[in-house]
Amino acid sequence: MSRTPSQPKHLTALRLRPPPRAKLAADLQKYFAVCDEKIGFLPNVLAAYSFHEKKLRAFIGMYNDLMLDDSPLSKLEREMIAVVVSSANRCYYCQVAHGQAVRELSGDPVLGELLVMNYRAAKLPRAQRAMLDFAHKMTVTPDAIAESDRRKLRRAGFNERAIWDIASVASFFNMTNRMATAIDMMPNEKYHSAHR
Amino acid sequence: MSRTPSQPKHLTALRLRPPPRAKLAADLQKYFAVCDEKIGFLPNVLAAYSFHEKKLRAFIGMYNDLMLDDSPLSKLEREMIAVVVSSANRCYYCQVAHGQAVRELSGDPVLGELLVMNYRAAKLPRAQRAMLDFAHKMTVTPDAIAESDRRKLRRAGFNERAIWDIASVASFFNMTNRMATAIDMMPNEKYHSAHR
Amino acid sequence: MSRTPSQPKHLTALRLRPPPRAKLAADLQKYFAVCDEKIGFLPNVLAAYSFHEKKLRAFIGMYNDLMLDDSPLSKLEREMIAVVVSSANRCYYCQVAHGQAVRELSGDPVLGELLVMNYRAAKLPRAQRAMLDFAHKMTVTPDAIAESDRRKLRRAGFNERAIWDIASVASFFNMTNRMATAIDMMPNEKYHSAHR
Amino acid sequence: MSRTPSQPKHLTALRLRPPPRAKLAADLQKYFAVCDEKIGFLPNVLAAYSFHEKKLRAFIGMYNDLMLDDSPLSKLEREMIAVVVSSANRCYYCQVAHGQAVRELSGDPVLGELLVMNYRAAKLPRAQRAMLDFAHKMTVTPDAIAESDRRKLRRAGFNERAIWDIASVASFFNMTNRMATAIDMMPNEKYHSAHR
Amino acid sequence: MSRTPSQPKHLTALRLRPPPRAKLAADLQKYFAVCDEKIGFLPNVLAAYSFHEKKLRAFIGMYNDLMLDDSPLSKLEREMIAVVVSSANRCYYCQVAHGQAVRELSGDPVLGELLVMNYRAAKLPRAQRAMLDFAHKMTVTPDAIAESDRRKLRRAGFNERAIWDIASVASFFNMTNRMATAIDMMPNEKYHSAHR
Amino acid sequence: MSRTPSQPKHLTALRLRPPPRAKLAADLQKYFAVCDEKIGFLPNVLAAYSFHEKKLRAFIGMYNDLMLDDSPLSKLEREMIAVVVSSANRCYYCQVAHGQAVRELSGDPVLGELLVMNYRAAKLPRAQRAMLDFAHKMTVTPDAIAESDRRKLRRAGFNERAIWDIASVASFFNMTNRMATAIDMMPNEKYHSAHR
Repeated sequence: MSRTPSQPKHLTALRLRPPPRAKLAADLQKYFAVCDEKIGFLPNVLAAYSFHEKKLRAFIGMYNDLMLDDSPLSKLEREMIAVVVSSANRCYYCQVAHGQAVRELSGDPVLGELLVMNYRAAKLPRAQRAMLDFAHKMTVTPDAIAESDRRKLRRAGFNERAIWDIASVASFFNMTNRMATAIDMMPNEKYHSAHR
Repeated sequence: MSRTPSQPKHLTALRLRPPPRAKLAADLQKYFAVCDEKIGFLPNVLAAYSFHEKKLRAFIGMYNDLMLDDSPLSKLEREMIAVVVSSANRCYYCQVAHGQAVRELSGDPVLGELLVMNYRAAKLPRAQRAMLDFAHKMTVTPDAIAESDRRKLRRAGFNERAIWDIASVASFFNMTNRMATAIDMMPNEKYHSAHR
Repeated sequence: MSRTPSQPKHLTALRLRPPPRAKLAADLQKYFAVCDEKIGFLPNVLAAYSFHEKKLRAFIGMYNDLMLDDSPLSKLEREMIAVVVSSANRCYYCQVAHGQAVRELSGDPVLGELLVMNYRAAKLPRAQRAMLDFAHKMTVTPDAIAESDRRKLRRAGFNERAIWDIASVASFFNMTNRMATAIDMMPNEKYHSAHR
Repeated sequence: MSRTPSQPKHLTALRLRPPPRAKLAADLQKYFAVCDEKIGFLPNVLAAYSFHEKKLRAFIGMYNDLMLDDSPLSKLEREMIAVVVSSANRCYYCQVAHGQAVRELSGDPVLGELLVMNYRAAKLPRAQRAMLDFAHKMTVTPDAIAESDRRKLRRAGFNERAIWDIASVASFFNMTNRMATAIDMMPNEKYHSAHR
Repeated sequence: MSRTPSQPKHLTALRLRPPPRAKLAADLQKYFAVCDEKIGFLPNVLAAYSFHEKKLRAFIGMYNDLMLDDSPLSKLEREMIAVVVSSANRCYYCQVAHGQAVRELSGDPVLGELLVMNYRAAKLPRAQRAMLDFAHKMTVTPDAIAESDRRKLRRAGFNERAIWDIASVASFFNMTNRMATAIDMMPNEKYHSAHR
Repeated sequence: MSRTPSQPKHLTALRLRPPPRAKLAADLQKYFAVCDEKIGFLPNVLAAYSFHEKKLRAFIGMYNDLMLDDSPLSKLEREMIAVVVSSANRCYYCQVAHGQAVRELSGDPVLGELLVMNYRAAKLPRAQRAMLDFAHKMTVTPDAIAESDRRKLRRAGFNERAIWDIASVASFFNMTNRMATAIDMMPNEKYHSAHR
């Protein structure tokens, strides 16, 4: 049986043409080259945003600060939040890309799948479970977050800055999830087989 | 960092001890041996049910009829329904086990993940999409299924027997999903890396 | 005013013709005869499944084990779970048939209606309430069942096997409810007036 | 086994004592006497409200206008709306009392149960189905009612006044359902066996 | 840019013509005159109901008893319940009219907006928060109200009669919200700018 | 009665102290001075983010691009999306701040309230209604957005870039809404009375 592959080949559902990479500003070309080297390919989200340099810069600025810069949260913990939020919102792009990141950073090939499928089935340290419960609640019933929820994070050992970072990472993926699904952004296929 | 692996080591959360396989009735031992050979291991669901031979037989009887016997639906289509239902119910065990089956039967390593993450993002033949829409609706709003939904299946080319089979496979996983999550049944780890 | 009776006359919405009972295998004819005698009629679910003997046998096999065989749960308790699950899923067939069973087995003509309408309004022993709360939660938010829920059952006096049985009965009706609504299976009218 | 009956014996969960009927104003005593005669007993809702004559009069005033006075809707149709709304809200009192009214007024002993269990399973004239769909939508997603919903009622043959009455009867039971469940009001047991 | 004002000019979406006020019964004309004087205008809900004097009287009877008569709850507290319920149901008319009442009665121009937008963000005395939590739960999950919810009200200092009044005011707005949205009733524009 | 004002006085619930404005980098001081001048005060969101200059810059970068830079959507339209999303998520801060912006930019003092309370009650040009329906659906059921939804926007006259902007503005407020509620960020009181 010669089935058509199930994943659409488009970048997004919108007919917005990114320019060739060689036409981008030098610093952006350099940033893309770093991606090529570190990830092995240019993530499609960056290719999609490159139709408009200012929007691309704004996205990169926020992404780098939240996911790569200093934080009381480890990079793995931020990626775990990304996956749990993306699973709650059922964003295909982000579950693929950040599920891979969790597999890579944790060295635990099963953890990414657990967080995609139902983070409550994972065996996690108490603090990480509290962190993910907060991120999940922010995602599905944001209007019900209360002081008692922040208190649980404090009791699990998170300080004020860590709570800010949990909140802002979870919030960020509530943005990117919706952007990706609203325009049907497709992830790079190479994510799927990596770090299994 | 030496993290504890994220997947619990138990078979289920219940302290019900299955007997050694050598104590099972001869026909069940033989069935398990076939599993070993065809799948490469004994699925944990069968190990869990083996604490009670009659319940194990009832489960096997229904499973074999629905998933392996003759049907207007291909085995792959039945596994696709299994994954979409299990994703809607966020059953960890069934997403792992049947996601693997979809990867294996389709020869499309991405399809299993698409159906786990959000089947609406997949590029599917119209009939398969109609089949999955019906299974999904049955799962999340069973009280709202109407003649118009069955009509859509007929228009997509399914005959009466095929509709029975779509309905009964989707129904079956609404049972197994709840059983697995209610007793925290864990899937065999070997599923994760297979057919990537 | 001569209104048309409100209940459709069909067995199911699918044009799958069961054979005359006299054409069924001898053991199935005998099983149906026992139903006639004990219930007073052949439940429509059995008539519907009889279009395919293997499927009928698989259904009977699981039904008999779960609802009629030995269990730490009484037959009434298993029927109470059936009604609460079927009410949550708003399955007409199962609410009718198992509501009748609750009325019959309890000798309390109101209990079946209470469980159909809102089991939380019933005055129940603490253990039964815990059992129904678990079955209800499994039905409406299966992904949220946690060890704390199983702990409540243990504290209410249920042992491991009883928890297995609560879980598997609740799971079974999540299957049958969806099968019945997906194919619009109609209950026998005689259920309605029985044991009022 | 001598089980405790499942239905609580209280009138409501609140310790508000209604006076003896002989202490009520003469017109209210007379109204209650008419209930005794026509229904066979005094509905508990009236007994409960009688702790405060002004509130009782306000309730009776609105109830009589909506359910008993002239309307393009028949009394049966108004009772059908009552049951569908009460089922969506899972109000035990109102499903019992108005389910009985539907059985009585329709002469169709099954119709009341169908509307309690899942009105979508009933075989109804198109206009009645449209009326119940509107009442159901008003109940579960009131913020989503739109001109297109009113247009469906008009196309089904309802005039402006009939739409007002459908809307106001459905609205009224969204009030009484919540009042009854908020104070755990129990229906008279005699409703259960009547008109089966 | 000359935009069309966003608020429709109709009284309701139904073509039911209220008579001129001078044609109404004398007591109703007098009641309307009192409204003119105390509120500054005739609320549109009264104008809408005036197409049918009996319905208008029934509405006024219940409204006056619940919102204006003696109660352990202050008038402001009853209006706060009105706004929280109307916000949960997203009823435009009632949020506008009762949001204004909260602003006026509280002398706190922000309180009305807080209750419209998310009452959980308000800084409220513990008893008022308990009262609003009960009203909100009654509105969104009426079937889940339990004795434990009434116990919280008692612990917050409410007596039996106060609980009756909380329940009946919350119930009443679940009626009026649905009536207003079902017929697209528009509030008087003067509410918007009052007491800011 | 001397009630405590209902709005908490804190900036956020987190004990993260922003530095005095005079300690910020010169360009940020200047940006804040522009806010003082154009808005009349410094929005609390900027004060809250100023505890960390890099995070503040990332936020400003994205905000300015989306809400103030060139777009096929007018500034008013972007603010309308902000309010509809914030209302769906019941974010107090954003409903207050962007409700005010809608009042100011539209010159229609009622429009901001309509969008806060229930945008479906507003009388809007068809294209704006389609835009808000898309933003609302992205917010409440992001996993269900499909090509058919994008097609509706195209039919309403939006080009590919406009769809990108609708999607990204709606996504952005799904981020800021969650951030604000997660840390209980309070809006400046001056928003409330402005442009009524």
